[in-house]
Amino acid sequence: GFAKIDHHRSLRLGLPEVIYAAGKTPEQVAEIFARMAHAGGDVIATRASIAAWDAVKQMVPQAEYHTDARIIGLRQTDALADAGPVAVLCAGTSDIPVAEEAAVTATYLGVKVERVYDVGVAGLHRLLAQRETLKEARAVIVCAGMEGALPSVVGGLVAAPVIAVPTSVGYGAAFGGLTALLGMLNSCAPNVAVVNIDNGFGAAYVAAMMLRS
Amino acid sequence: GFAKIDHHRSLRLGLPEVIYAAGKTPEQVAEIFARMAHAGGDVIATRASIAAWDAVKQMVPQAEYHTDARIIGLRQTDALADAGPVAVLCAGTSDIPVAEEAAVTATYLGVKVERVYDVGVAGLHRLLAQRETLKEARAVIVCAGMEGALPSVVGGLVAAPVIAVPTSVGYGAAFGGLTALLGMLNSCAPNVAVVNIDNGFGAAYVAAMMLRS
Amino acid sequence: GFAKIDHHRSLRLGLPEVIYAAGKTPEQVAEIFARMAHAGGDVIATRASIAAWDAVKQMVPQAEYHTDARIIGLRQTDALADAGPVAVLCAGTSDIPVAEEAAVTATYLGVKVERVYDVGVAGLHRLLAQRETLKEARAVIVCAGMEGALPSVVGGLVAAPVIAVPTSVGYGAAFGGLTALLGMLNSCAPNVAVVNIDNGFGAAYVAAMMLRS
Amino acid sequence: GFAKIDHHRSLRLGLPEVIYAAGKTPEQVAEIFARMAHAGGDVIATRASIAAWDAVKQMVPQAEYHTDARIIGLRQTDALADAGPVAVLCAGTSDIPVAEEAAVTATYLGVKVERVYDVGVAGLHRLLAQRETLKEARAVIVCAGMEGALPSVVGGLVAAPVIAVPTSVGYGAAFGGLTALLGMLNSCAPNVAVVNIDNGFGAAYVAAMMLRS
Amino acid sequence: GFAKIDHHRSLRLGLPEVIYAAGKTPEQVAEIFARMAHAGGDVIATRASIAAWDAVKQMVPQAEYHTDARIIGLRQTDALADAGPVAVLCAGTSDIPVAEEAAVTATYLGVKVERVYDVGVAGLHRLLAQRETLKEARAVIVCAGMEGALPSVVGGLVAAPVIAVPTSVGYGAAFGGLTALLGMLNSCAPNVAVVNIDNGFGAAYVAAMMLRS
Amino acid sequence: GFAKIDHHRSLRLGLPEVIYAAGKTPEQVAEIFARMAHAGGDVIATRASIAAWDAVKQMVPQAEYHTDARIIGLRQTDALADAGPVAVLCAGTSDIPVAEEAAVTATYLGVKVERVYDVGVAGLHRLLAQRETLKEARAVIVCAGMEGALPSVVGGLVAAPVIAVPTSVGYGAAFGGLTALLGMLNSCAPNVAVVNIDNGFGAAYVAAMMLRS
Amino acid sequence: GFAKIDHHRSLRLGLPEVIYAAGKTPEQVAEIFARMAHAGGDVIATRASIAAWDAVKQMVPQAEYHTDARIIGLRQTDALADAGPVAVLCAGTSDIPVAEEAAVTATYLGVKVERVYDVGVAGLHRLLAQRETLKEARAVIVCAGMEGALPSVVGGLVAAPVIAVPTSVGYGAAFGGLTALLGMLNSCAPNVAVVNIDNGFGAAYVAAMMLRS
Amino acid sequence: GFAKIDHHRSLRLGLPEVIYAAGKTPEQVAEIFARMAHAGGDVIATRASIAAWDAVKQMVPQAEYHTDARIIGLRQTDALADAGPVAVLCAGTSDIPVAEEAAVTATYLGVKVERVYDVGVAGLHRLLAQRETLKEARAVIVCAGMEGALPSVVGGLVAAPVIAVPTSVGYGAAFGGLTALLGMLNSCAPNVAVVNIDNGFGAAYVAAMMLRS
Ligand SMILES: Nc1ncnc2c1ncn2[C@@H]1O[C@H](COP(=O)(O)O)[C@@H](O)[C@H]1O
Ligand SMILES: Nc1ncnc2c1ncn2[C@@H]1O[C@H](COP(=O)(O)O)[C@@H](O)[C@H]1O
Ligand SMILES: Nc1ncnc2c1ncn2[C@@H]1O[C@H](COP(=O)(O)O)[C@@H](O)[C@H]1O
Ligand SMILES: Nc1ncnc2c1ncn2[C@@H]1O[C@H](COP(=O)(O)O)[C@@H](O)[C@H]1O
Ligand SMILES: [Mg+2]
Ligand SMILES: [Mg+2]
Ligand SMILES: [Mg+2]
Ligand SMILES: [Mg+2]
Ligand SMILES: [Mg+2]
Ligand SMILES: [Mg+2]
Ligand SMILES: [Mg+2]
Ligand SMILES: [Mg+2]
Repeated sequence: GFAKIDHHRSLRLGLPEVIYAAGKTPEQVAEIFARMAHAGGDVIATRASIAAWDAVKQMVPQAEYHTDARIIGLRQTDALADAGPVAVLCAGTSDIPVAEEAAVTATYLGVKVERVYDVGVAGLHRLLAQRETLKEARAVIVCAGMEGALPSVVGGLVAAPVIAVPTSVGYGAAFGGLTALLGMLNSCAPNVAVVNIDNGFGAAYVAAMMLRS
Repeated sequence: GFAKIDHHRSLRLGLPEVIYAAGKTPEQVAEIFARMAHAGGDVIATRASIAAWDAVKQMVPQAEYHTDARIIGLRQTDALADAGPVAVLCAGTSDIPVAEEAAVTATYLGVKVERVYDVGVAGLHRLLAQRETLKEARAVIVCAGMEGALPSVVGGLVAAPVIAVPTSVGYGAAFGGLTALLGMLNSCAPNVAVVNIDNGFGAAYVAAMMLRS
Repeated sequence: GFAKIDHHRSLRLGLPEVIYAAGKTPEQVAEIFARMAHAGGDVIATRASIAAWDAVKQMVPQAEYHTDARIIGLRQTDALADAGPVAVLCAGTSDIPVAEEAAVTATYLGVKVERVYDVGVAGLHRLLAQRETLKEARAVIVCAGMEGALPSVVGGLVAAPVIAVPTSVGYGAAFGGLTALLGMLNSCAPNVAVVNIDNGFGAAYVAAMMLRS
Repeated sequence: GFAKIDHHRSLRLGLPEVIYAAGKTPEQVAEIFARMAHAGGDVIATRASIAAWDAVKQMVPQAEYHTDARIIGLRQTDALADAGPVAVLCAGTSDIPVAEEAAVTATYLGVKVERVYDVGVAGLHRLLAQRETLKEARAVIVCAGMEGALPSVVGGLVAAPVIAVPTSVGYGAAFGGLTALLGMLNSCAPNVAVVNIDNGFGAAYVAAMMLRS
Repeated sequence: GFAKIDHHRSLRLGLPEVIYAAGKTPEQVAEIFARMAHAGGDVIATRASIAAWDAVKQMVPQAEYHTDARIIGLRQTDALADAGPVAVLCAGTSDIPVAEEAAVTATYLGVKVERVYDVGVAGLHRLLAQRETLKEARAVIVCAGMEGALPSVVGGLVAAPVIAVPTSVGYGAAFGGLTALLGMLNSCAPNVAVVNIDNGFGAAYVAAMMLRS
Repeated sequence: GFAKIDHHRSLRLGLPEVIYAAGKTPEQVAEIFARMAHAGGDVIATRASIAAWDAVKQMVPQAEYHTDARIIGLRQTDALADAGPVAVLCAGTSDIPVAEEAAVTATYLGVKVERVYDVGVAGLHRLLAQRETLKEARAVIVCAGMEGALPSVVGGLVAAPVIAVPTSVGYGAAFGGLTALLGMLNSCAPNVAVVNIDNGFGAAYVAAMMLRS
Repeated sequence: GFAKIDHHRSLRLGLPEVIYAAGKTPEQVAEIFARMAHAGGDVIATRASIAAWDAVKQMVPQAEYHTDARIIGLRQTDALADAGPVAVLCAGTSDIPVAEEAAVTATYLGVKVERVYDVGVAGLHRLLAQRETLKEARAVIVCAGMEGALPSVVGGLVAAPVIAVPTSVGYGAAFGGLTALLGMLNSCAPNVAVVNIDNGFGAAYVAAMMLRS
Repeated sequence: GFAKIDHHRSLRLGLPEVIYAAGKTPEQVAEIFARMAHAGGDVIATRASIAAWDAVKQMVPQAEYHTDARIIGLRQTDALADAGPVAVLCAGTSDIPVAEEAAVTATYLGVKVERVYDVGVAGLHRLLAQRETLKEARAVIVCAGMEGALPSVVGGLVAAPVIAVPTSVGYGAAFGGLTALLGMLNSCAPNVAVVNIDNGFGAAYVAAMMLRS
């Protein structure tokens, strides 16, 4: 028992338990996952390596691994996925892992997801072709690296909240996502809020809170 | 006609027109305000100095000035304020102008507001005394400068989205709000998203979009 | 004679002499301007205050002042303005001074200019309405502050070089233009190069070199 | 003899000799450790890898290794551990290595330690449950990464000095501990002082000086 | 009643109430000061301008102004100043205001103070001449700007905790105190902890907590 | 089909398709390359490792690998290389890979290239010996790391646009190319525009747009 | 007597006393200046405003004011100015105040000075015209703002040490001299050392030490 | 022949040729080294790995390897080592590789060296014990990481120029040598100039230029 598991929140809200697997050994992830699974609710582990997945599936065979999202998940409740839909966008193919972290997390939080990937602003026709999907979304999650311009353009196309996720995609003066982060914080669209670099999980969580509160 | 007014968005959404008064002369603010008022909808001007207010009230006598929020507003429609409530919190008395920018903006966007001010984390009893108000909120806006710790604590107390607004309050290594901004982006509570430093307006806008989308 | 005037370059190229007026007293600007005017070519002074203009017009009555651009200019040659056209864009009304510095400089460098102002990416229809103008441009100068996203969108719409000018417009995490600068350097459009924050002059100079070399 | 050992300080104060093992080869650590052990006092080596421990235990079999703390220690005196108690807190399980570096160091410096781990501010009930322990502490060491908010909350709960240790736990805009560091320096609680990122050793040293001076 | 006064802490500890006067109008400072004075305890206002002092002395004639420290103080209790002594050092004459903020605060917190000013490390004989005073101190507060080297040298001379205060003294790459702050955080002396730039108040508060806990 | 290939731009312009191979697996690069080759136009992949080259040449035997440039290329059209010439310069031998990325890209974009390598400013005679080549260039690409001074010197020697490419060459306060980037943005020569650190590809693209628009 | 005057160093070395006037009131400067003048040696005050000069000349009529350098000086000894010569260069006319601070300081330190001003690298012929002067110098001080490239070019032309002084001249990404500072630290010429931004005084001092040690 | 060897400088000055081995393959280093050796003068290669040394000694058997300094050297002339002495200091044992790079370089440049290692400021007696050595030095090179305080203290003890070398030693807020660099640039001792982080080579070169010019 090296960690104090906080069942309060998830029980209270009917939400899955969440493990942040980065910096934990596969054995630690598996042990915590199994303990939480035992409690009967849904469980997800984010930032889970293949090695962690190997350890978890030994102990919890009914769990699943979402490779792109790097999430191990277990559904044990019959929680309804009736909130949403949330549109999850990304600018380039390199942003897909972050977008998938958001999309898979949202699903486990009971939110329907529409994926709209590879619609960066330097080829606008790709984004404009998806306008109908965007208009139907009750919230939009937008993942982008490099200059992080996509949320501003999307913000102007929708009448819903936009949750922007800067990604660490890029090189040189991209500074590991800092440039995208700063760009998103300074969006000239007023309906944009921002989470940490690569934090697809957090974006989905905020969106789920919006739709369920 | 030096600025292209974009009536599309606000008309479409039944939202007020918004003028960002910083960097505009009082005359420019007054002229744009009057032109927008003439169109018949609601209008607000944020970051409006007393001088701007003096100029506006000459041309639009029925407008009002919210001193702490530095917002000039005009209500011409009978839009209902039935969304919400949103709780607006701030950590210290120096954060009040930013909190008021959020609270007044939210009101013009049709959202009911509960103010919970001066509840910084170094005196927890003040925040804990407001738990009931927090629980009833459908979204929470939290304004804080210095170390910006309040959103993390609030995030753990509510099951609603938290929109964090770093303020430029502080000195030395507060770096004009950068420290609070970084802290909020790294919140260990998963339900926190962040807007630009001192951007009370944007926080209210995101909250309104959440409640209305 | 505190400054070594370098007539080589401008004579060689048939370009105007240029004075950078910032940090010089009105008297110094006027004295240098007059000396250069005396040599018979065209002359411009950038970043010129009204006070500098007052001093110059005493000594060189035939000069003109471009208020928004903050440029004092003198045309003495019959250099042809037959290169171009260059389109000069800006995202918001606050970026106009920088855009004008670019536009007026380009004109003195013999380049025809098309102004396309207030076409920020959060209201795309404004930009898309100008597509024809953009397509005819042989180079595009794009001025934007805050998140600096406009060059990426424009870069995708044209088959010409885009010279991006970050402006110091914005607050908080805009960091005086740094955010826009970093965003532009990381543009996902491949045809974008960048000059210093607020450097409308330099953008025009690079564009003129392109069109004349 | 590549290093000048300074026996003055430790002899004068009855404190253990300290080796900073990072960047030294296992052989160097072992040789210095053995030389110091030979002098008869207590010795500790911080940031010691398993490889360093393997080398030391060959030469000094009576030494011990504190795995989580990464400290090799040797007790040869009968120095009393009667100062304190100092409470050592950490926000999450990933901060435990830094907290252990502090706790183990404090013990070798003759200070009694109470460990209070995994009490981050997003789940306040965990911290509030430990109020009695906190009240009895004569100094409090608080280790936290990410937004580093815990010291501010703790500072408001105790009437003792708080020594805050930012940790490099987190990702993206955590910037390897810089965000936590800045947050702690700007704590709104007045009784907080800060040491370098991940410097559990230094925090314990300052605490011991306080209790013994 | 715009601010929630928190009498708990100070009453509980027998400490003065503290007002942070920066960013408050003279009238606000005076009103809060008077209200607190009325409660019967000691009161200090830090970062108080002459204008604030003028306003306070109208309402609380028995208060005093410490010009260098920029502190307005009022002693109403017979709290004993028997803790300490604390030595307060500064490197150059420009650091004196910060050192005085520390020294005067410490006095109001019941701690005896020894001032050792203008003892920067580039003229070591000045510091070495004060060794006896340093040795008698139970804690040492060291204020320095520019490269902030003094705490490291002092840390090696004493067996007491050193609280380092970076000051904003310097120019160019001093970056308003950031260089001194970073230097102090990286001190090679192990007994150094750091507070915010120019935060003489906080240093004294931490020292008082040490001596009284 | 994980990526949306945008044939519009390249078809429209008679330009090669471009793949950014960094962060893609050799298999992904090969698959996209083959698909694009199939469409009949020219194709290049930048930042391509030897492993990527091994995978591509299995599927597209007629492709070539430019080792220094790390570019895989395929010529299938008879596009004329009649634009230019562009001079590509670099300061030191370590900058050659970036210079080659620019030179090879330019060639595939139909631009003639003159290479002028290892002409850093600390040995001016090397650069001055190449003046004739510089004068004939219609655009100049200058790659330099460390202090990035070369574009300023070159800018003064030519009447053509200079596209500066900061490289990540250097150590310590070179900060991975940031110092060179900042230096180039502040060039005292007015005819200099800048692209991202190590972005030889972008520099060539901008140059080609200049010469072809 | 608020400041401890340290006569040791200057007496020992036959050097003038130095007052750093920034942040001191005119009265303080005058009082310290007079006291030092009374001791019989040479005295200089750097960063001295006209107001300080007005105060000093009342008390020490035989002092002189060097306007550009902002130095008040007093020669009372017959110290020989036989060391050197040192060449003092600057890139643009805006750098002259810093260059003059260096040149005047050097003169008071007994060093002969050759001024070579306005020889920035974008117009190389101006610098190359001064090669003979450079070759005769025993040390070279180079002041430059913006990209700070001049020391690298000069370093390659001389076989003497180059002391580089970044200046705060420039705007936008010049960041108050930081860009020039970083550039100079990364000079590809090996004979360059650097002092603080705008620190002409320090550069002269280091040069004098070289020539006299 | 990928690199343009510049024999001018070294021949003119009777100095060794210098190769910067970082980023070059062992084969490249060996080939350049052999070519230079063939020219008959002295040669050194800095930042040379053991692998580079293995390659060089195959081709130039009479060369030597200085392990700590990571320098490969070859003496072929009878250049006199009669300049100096220069004292080379370092603060801690981890700084020794940088100090050795300086010391060995200086020796090849014909300068006598006195090594004074492990004399950091937190144990002043170690430095003060070396005062006589310091006084005899005609220049002093000081290498230090972490807070980089040593040059300020040394600067106050000598009447010679101090060349400060920040090292990348330290962790957390040492930021890879940036903290030491900034501290040294802000030294309160006026006789300190600074070179790049870890640039022992440059420090020695500047010192040699001083002593030989
Ligand atoms: N990818 C992620 N990024 C940020 N926070 C996360 C992530 N995944 C999980 N978390 C948070 O980390 C908590 C669990 O941390 P731990 O107790 O260390 O496993 C969860 O309650 C979430 O709030
Ligand atoms: N306080 C504020 N902070 C950020 N954006 C604002 C603020 N107030 C207004 N805005 C935005 O500024 C736009 C109007 O800008 P403008 O057309 O320049 O007056 C509005 O549509 C809002 O999106
Ligand atoms: N312009 C300057 N920049 C940096 N240091 C200076 C300058 N002028 C004087 N100093 C230093 O400041 C010391 C005097 O400081 P003070 O005792 O405060 O007057 C002198 O001994 C110099 O070392
Ligand atoms: N350790 C070093 N740090 C910085 N510059 C160096 C170093 N060693 C050599 N140099 C410089 O690098 C040049 C040789 O670079 P290269 O031609 O790339 O081998 C020499 O002339 C020196 O000026
Ligand atoms: Mg794509
Ligand atoms: Mg309060
Ligand atoms: Mg607008
Ligand atoms: Mg946990
Ligand atoms: Mg002094
Ligand atoms: Mg070379
Ligand atoms: Mg000039
Ligand atoms: Mg040591």
